[in-house]
Amino acid sequence: MKRYDQVAQTLTQRIEQGQYRIGDRLPSVRLLCRELGVSISTVQEAYRRLEALGLVEARPRSGYYVQPRPTPNVLPKVSRPAQRPLDVSQWDQVLELVARAPQEDRLVMLGRGIPDLTAASLRPLLRQLATLHRHAAAHALNYDSLQGSLELRRQVARLADKSGCLLHPDDILVTTGCQEALSLALRTLTEPGDVVAVDSPSFYGTMQILKAQKLKALEIPTDPRTGISLEAMELALEQWPIKAIQITPTCNNPLGYTMPEARKRALVALAQRFDVAIVEDDIYGDLSYDTPRPPTLKSFDDDGRVLLCSAFSKTLVPGLRVGWMAPGRYRDQVLHMKYVSTGASATLPQLAVAEFVRHGHYERHLREMVRQYRQHRDIMIDWVTRHFPPGTGVSYPQGGFLLWIELPDSIDCVRLKERLVGEGLHITPGSLFSASGKFRHCLRLNYAAAMTPAVEAAIRRVGEAVAELMPSPA
Amino acid sequence: MKRYDQVAQTLTQRIEQGQYRIGDRLPSVRLLCRELGVSISTVQEAYRRLEALGLVEARPRSGYYVQPRPTPNVLPKVSRPAQRPLDVSQWDQVLELVARAPQEDRLVMLGRGIPDLTAASLRPLLRQLATLHRHAAAHALNYDSLQGSLELRRQVARLADKSGCLLHPDDILVTTGCQEALSLALRTLTEPGDVVAVDSPSFYGTMQILKAQKLKALEIPTDPRTGISLEAMELALEQWPIKAIQITPTCNNPLGYTMPEARKRALVALAQRFDVAIVEDDIYGDLSYDTPRPPTLKSFDDDGRVLLCSAFSKTLVPGLRVGWMAPGRYRDQVLHMKYVSTGASATLPQLAVAEFVRHGHYERHLREMVRQYRQHRDIMIDWVTRHFPPGTGVSYPQGGFLLWIELPDSIDCVRLKERLVGEGLHITPGSLFSASGKFRHCLRLNYAAAMTPAVEAAIRRVGEAVAELMPSPA
Repeated sequence: MKRYDQVAQTLTQRIEQGQYRIGDRLPSVRLLCRELGVSISTVQEAYRRLEALGLVEARPRSGYYVQPRPTPNVLPKVSRPAQRPLDVSQWDQVLELVARAPQEDRLVMLGRGIPDLTAASLRPLLRQLATLHRHAAAHALNYDSLQGSLELRRQVARLADKSGCLLHPDDILVTTGCQEALSLALRTLTEPGDVVAVDSPSFYGTMQILKAQKLKALEIPTDPRTGISLEAMELALEQWPIKAIQITPTCNNPLGYTMPEARKRALVALAQRFDVAIVEDDIYGDLSYDTPRPPTLKSFDDDGRVLLCSAFSKTLVPGLRVGWMAPGRYRDQVLHMKYVSTGASATLPQLAVAEFVRHGHYERHLREMVRQYRQHRDIMIDWVTRHFPPGTGVSYPQGGFLLWIELPDSIDCVRLKERLVGEGLHITPGSLFSASGKFRHCLRLNYAAAMTPAVEAAIRRVGEAVAELMPSPA
Repeated sequence: MKRYDQVAQTLTQRIEQGQYRIGDRLPSVRLLCRELGVSISTVQEAYRRLEALGLVEARPRSGYYVQPRPTPNVLPKVSRPAQRPLDVSQWDQVLELVARAPQEDRLVMLGRGIPDLTAASLRPLLRQLATLHRHAAAHALNYDSLQGSLELRRQVARLADKSGCLLHPDDILVTTGCQEALSLALRTLTEPGDVVAVDSPSFYGTMQILKAQKLKALEIPTDPRTGISLEAMELALEQWPIKAIQITPTCNNPLGYTMPEARKRALVALAQRFDVAIVEDDIYGDLSYDTPRPPTLKSFDDDGRVLLCSAFSKTLVPGLRVGWMAPGRYRDQVLHMKYVSTGASATLPQLAVAEFVRHGHYERHLREMVRQYRQHRDIMIDWVTRHFPPGTGVSYPQGGFLLWIELPDSIDCVRLKERLVGEGLHITPGSLFSASGKFRHCLRLNYAAAMTPAVEAAIRRVGEAVAELMPSPA
């Protein structure tokens, strides 16, 4: 074996053993020469070979980096939900998830949609909050205006620019998290018994709003790369009296796709043709791995039928409950609904977030988080590919920090979850993401926080537990 | 004139000029002797005469205090609302009130239900908030459990003891202000078109929930001293398919009464007999001027039909939006409704309030506020009696910081409000407190904050403006 082949093999082994992880910078040429006692040209040749094999990537003036594996071949299948409106069930499963106080939990939480709360770039927000509270004037303890702090609405309007929306602060309403925005939107648009079309799988928080409002969910087939099927959507609009479309088209939860721009445009046109409203959930949109971030459906909306809902819960911290919405032509009704639901939102969190954004900390934090989450995605996919049974379908998220995993049909992830909780691990079974408990063979994993050996061990254990549930070959 | 009569006259004049106000301590005997150059026995005799006239009160080992005037003779009349269920209107008036950001307001706000936010006894809460935010661990930025912080629920359970309720932390749900509690309760209990019985006048926030839910309000005649008429309530229950009774029986907003205990007990029995639920708003209950505070309806509820709703918005600060409810037998449905409406409530405000209560600061703050608000009530009634046209009806609040004023039928307080806003004064017209805009000749005033000469001038100006609107005698 040539000297440079030996060096290349050493590096490959170290990568496979997890010593260097996907996205990590490999040692410099000079450092390797010294460590292995070989010449510069030998190391350079080794790196060239690894590059040719697609294992490392050379970045000019920076060095060599561990390359993610190419997109996994096995994506989850296009969903095939029931072709009729359904009542929503699954509350017991959702309750189990949200009744937990994360701070009191001893589990490794792989299941919930919680961002990394330890990021250094969040520190200015904490400083802001502490200062505001220490020096809180009487007015900061008082009710804010029903619509929300003007300064925060100004900053939100500025940020919305980047998703292609021209919003005036007056078009914006501050809410208590994105959940309140979604709830106000759907309660404004519908009456009990109405039909709402949703992507499939679909965020369980919205599905449960449908349940509480006694609405029916019409789940539309959804492609894990391009989102909701426009053809199926059109057929459904022809066939059913759909009152609203509820959808997460950018950095989808749970599938991670972003609908291509042309399809977003076409969906808005379809809504216009059939005169239905769209409730757009953009809570993960600013965590898109693409720069500039993709446009919202709202940016193609020229007659105010899109109710854009978002929050700082995934991009900053969920515990402050600062959300917002741009309700378009429904502004006055939504404002009334907001008043009766919670009155004005809490004052100080709004002021703190407004200051954080105004000083540029938000954009800095986003850059940091997007870099981290993209690297974590590649690592997580790598771990799942290694540790789960062959043939496992894995999503390829375009943003956010959630991975969707599709197992063989026979695997029951509710049972899997119960088994794993006993071992101190928490996953979210896919059945929460459907009106009727479909996707029971799927699960959602969170890759926001540090990808430590403990997390890899947890993933390995989930993979083993899946294998244990597989029917033994006859 | 005797020497002691002269001294008595001097003191009377000073009281009438507002140099000493109701509830203020008068100068000591020794001090007056020195100032007026008279003997101790002369001053003592002067004070004895004033005491006999009911102008001052002697408090053992403390001194002489300016006595409030006896209860005004003219209370507002017992209300006589429509005797059928009505749709709720008046949203435009409410919106005008809640769309304002108090901190940006240049008006003297006599209208809104805002406590004194400058009280020194609130300082530990600010310290708590600042410390928590400065040292916020990741878990404090995270979602809390859906039901709310266990520590806060423990403290709320402990406090509820004082209103006669035996609650377990598990019976309690933390909400985003009392408004969310009321909204969850009514949304859980009713379907569009249902009838809800309410006191009359009734808090506009709840009336607007009825409007948003497409419910009908059946307003029940209410006595400004003893509350809702049980006889009228019973007739209504016989005549109409009432789904729920919504009521504020302790330190009522806007009338200020507390229902006598026997009547509370009878109301719960009535609800049992007709098998309807009661939504009890107790947000001002801890601000009762009586010690111990009066019991809640909930304390007489032995089959879980009372949904008790409250918050720290009037007792501490509204801007934190920390509320809670004890939903009785409806716990599971309310929990679902809470999840879909806003998810978990904000974490840090809950922790801060829990610590504030745990260390005894809450009870200390209450004692201080109750003393202040009771004194302010007497001063405010005195001012209104002096500055408003004779025959003006004035409530005699048993707690809280809101006064209800009833003018001659011909006075239109919406017009009055519009005229006064132009002069930098804000009042709340009574029409907000009725489904159909009754009580247009009434208004609500806030006496929470410092009773400065500027506030007296404002009250005088309101009184003048009322006189200007009176038809001139023929």
